[in-house]
Amino acid sequence: MNYFSSDFKLGILGGGQLGKMLLFDTRKFDIQTYVLDPSEDAPSKVACNQFFQGDLMDFETVYNFGKIVDVLTFEIELVNLEALEKLEAEGLPVYPSPKTLRLIQNKGIQKDFYAQKNIPSAPYTRFPDLKALQHAVEMEEILIPFVWKCTEFGYDGNGVKVIRATTDFEGMPDVECIAEEMIPFKNELAVIVCRNPSGEIKTYPVVEMEFHPEANQVEYVICPARIDDAVAEKARAIALNVSEQFNHVGLLAVEMFQTEDDEILINEVAPRPHNSGHYSIEASYTSQFENHLRAVLDLPLGNTESKVAGIMVNLVGEEGYSGNVVYENIETVLGWNGVTPHIYGKKQTRPFRKMGHVTIVNADIKEARRIAEDVKNTLRVISE
Amino acid sequence: MNYFSSDFKLGILGGGQLGKMLLFDTRKFDIQTYVLDPSEDAPSKVACNQFFQGDLMDFETVYNFGKIVDVLTFEIELVNLEALEKLEAEGLPVYPSPKTLRLIQNKGIQKDFYAQKNIPSAPYTRFPDLKALQHAVEMEEILIPFVWKCTEFGYDGNGVKVIRATTDFEGMPDVECIAEEMIPFKNELAVIVCRNPSGEIKTYPVVEMEFHPEANQVEYVICPARIDDAVAEKARAIALNVSEQFNHVGLLAVEMFQTEDDEILINEVAPRPHNSGHYSIEASYTSQFENHLRAVLDLPLGNTESKVAGIMVNLVGEEGYSGNVVYENIETVLGWNGVTPHIYGKKQTRPFRKMGHVTIVNADIKEARRIAEDVKNTLRVISE
Repeated sequence: MNYFSSDFKLGILGGGQLGKMLLFDTRKFDIQTYVLDPSEDAPSKVACNQFFQGDLMDFETVYNFGKIVDVLTFEIELVNLEALEKLEAEGLPVYPSPKTLRLIQNKGIQKDFYAQKNIPSAPYTRFPDLKALQHAVEMEEILIPFVWKCTEFGYDGNGVKVIRATTDFEGMPDVECIAEEMIPFKNELAVIVCRNPSGEIKTYPVVEMEFHPEANQVEYVICPARIDDAVAEKARAIALNVSEQFNHVGLLAVEMFQTEDDEILINEVAPRPHNSGHYSIEASYTSQFENHLRAVLDLPLGNTESKVAGIMVNLVGEEGYSGNVVYENIETVLGWNGVTPHIYGKKQTRPFRKMGHVTIVNADIKEARRIAEDVKNTLRVISE
Repeated sequence: MNYFSSDFKLGILGGGQLGKMLLFDTRKFDIQTYVLDPSEDAPSKVACNQFFQGDLMDFETVYNFGKIVDVLTFEIELVNLEALEKLEAEGLPVYPSPKTLRLIQNKGIQKDFYAQKNIPSAPYTRFPDLKALQHAVEMEEILIPFVWKCTEFGYDGNGVKVIRATTDFEGMPDVECIAEEMIPFKNELAVIVCRNPSGEIKTYPVVEMEFHPEANQVEYVICPARIDDAVAEKARAIALNVSEQFNHVGLLAVEMFQTEDDEILINEVAPRPHNSGHYSIEASYTSQFENHLRAVLDLPLGNTESKVAGIMVNLVGEEGYSGNVVYENIETVLGWNGVTPHIYGKKQTRPFRKMGHVTIVNADIKEARRIAEDVKNTLRVISE
């Protein structure tokens, strides 16, 4: 297949920031792209060849979009699975496959899959609704504290909650869920695996999520993770295994816990480019986005090693600010060594909205970490 | 000025491959761009915010375009200078300044400028037309061999010719020109200088153009140049001096000769992103395109050092092929370590047309050079 400067069309479901960054590479290779997204202000709208506005959960919309492209991929999991299944059955290459997505989209099914395949993961129990979970807690079948997760449509911490008392149930949605045992862990790690339909498979180095000591929020994604080589090897091996078991194509971001005794447990996976791989644009020989593109087009995968150390800081809207966004002090941080802001193109900020990220690269990871902290303390996402 | 995700508009004259690569960075920073180009198939058309089709040499077209943007820059020098001068006089920031461009656009004026400023350059004589040059040759005021250069509108070797016999004059255009002494040189070098309106100035490392031993064509641009540190220091110092003398803003690519006795002579300059800096996308901390953008917006300049060695190979249309382009064996070279093709997005190839380039990066420059040669011998730009 001739993908380059030809009539070939890659369809992408979702036009958010992940799609936007994927389009840097489709443009670099001059591969024609069609994008479907519900928002007329989608960040991908500029830089795709054709933009279609429509509902990603609507069968007809997704199916009709699929019929006019040659290969279909997505940058968000919340898409109509039945449409993908019908398109695949009719012969359209859909990557990742809807079979893989069906195993991942529901966290209950995902956990069952790990149990079935002997992939280490925290103990859990599935519940059809909130009432059933509350009953189990009353019966002391489930012990407080535990982690509640809704099985579908959660994102960015939305849909995950630590339950420390029965009063925490107040105001929670009455949806299918799981209760997961709380595992004390030393580190939260992630490995991005890349696999093409021919079966070529590569992993990116292990990255580490560094948490704010009080706020318990991820502050920095650090590549490479500052962990023992043996632990890193174990994490990569588990990620490879997960990818192969899912038989997935494209990128699979595998989030993991490193327990107090250096066990690795799978937390969850995302079958697409991932926040934990944004550092790769500046730090890696081949970015996660380029490798996703290579994978879904069954091209050879690029080198996943790093040129230099990379640290990523998310840019989220500050509390107390809503409206036309201003990146306060962005000129200041641009003056620092190896600092690259990525602005996603959302015109309006609101508290905690993901507006961009900043990558800090340096040959010396300690220096990168120091500059990252300065960036974190200097650049603020506020409103006019 | 708030450039990011705001109503600010950067105008770019020219929508070719240089503009296309500049747009990766305007998109990364979410800076709004308007592009003017004569071709409805311009590579920049996708990824700018608004595209305007029009003649870059037409006063009214350029002037009217300038009136609707907040800062104006260009990716090609062949633009209407009078319009730029009027826009600048009316208060529009135009970078590089038309004053600088006027000194550079005509090679005769450019050479006079070097002579005036004591910047080393090959001896030359100016002629108003071909007849005057032929007369000087007949009178033996100019000795064969020498280098003929038309003073305006030359590009990519077009407009430069070595005259070895009077018969070489046949079929040459009757235009203003210079005759330049032929200087035997060891290396052709280039240094890209970056300067913002506040006067911050940085140079990229010296790169080397490696020529094909027989064809006398540049085959590889190599960063860093494989030359003595003392020569590299001298080249950077001369490039800095040239940039300051021109008082230019944005990127200035300074092409130089290293003579047999290690003198550095200026060949010519280009006031924009340049082929000799394409390697920087993958190899440098900050690409030439991002630094051009930073400069024209008076943002702090990014680090111009390299993360790894970089080698660039141009992809030009093969002789004997015209029509819908095919990049033969591109899948093969994508499988090699550190290889990134950039496809400019021209649908039609013709002999020697610049269709793209390939960057090869590696921690080891010798390994990069080896892979670059394999790329050169494998990837072919042909037609269907």
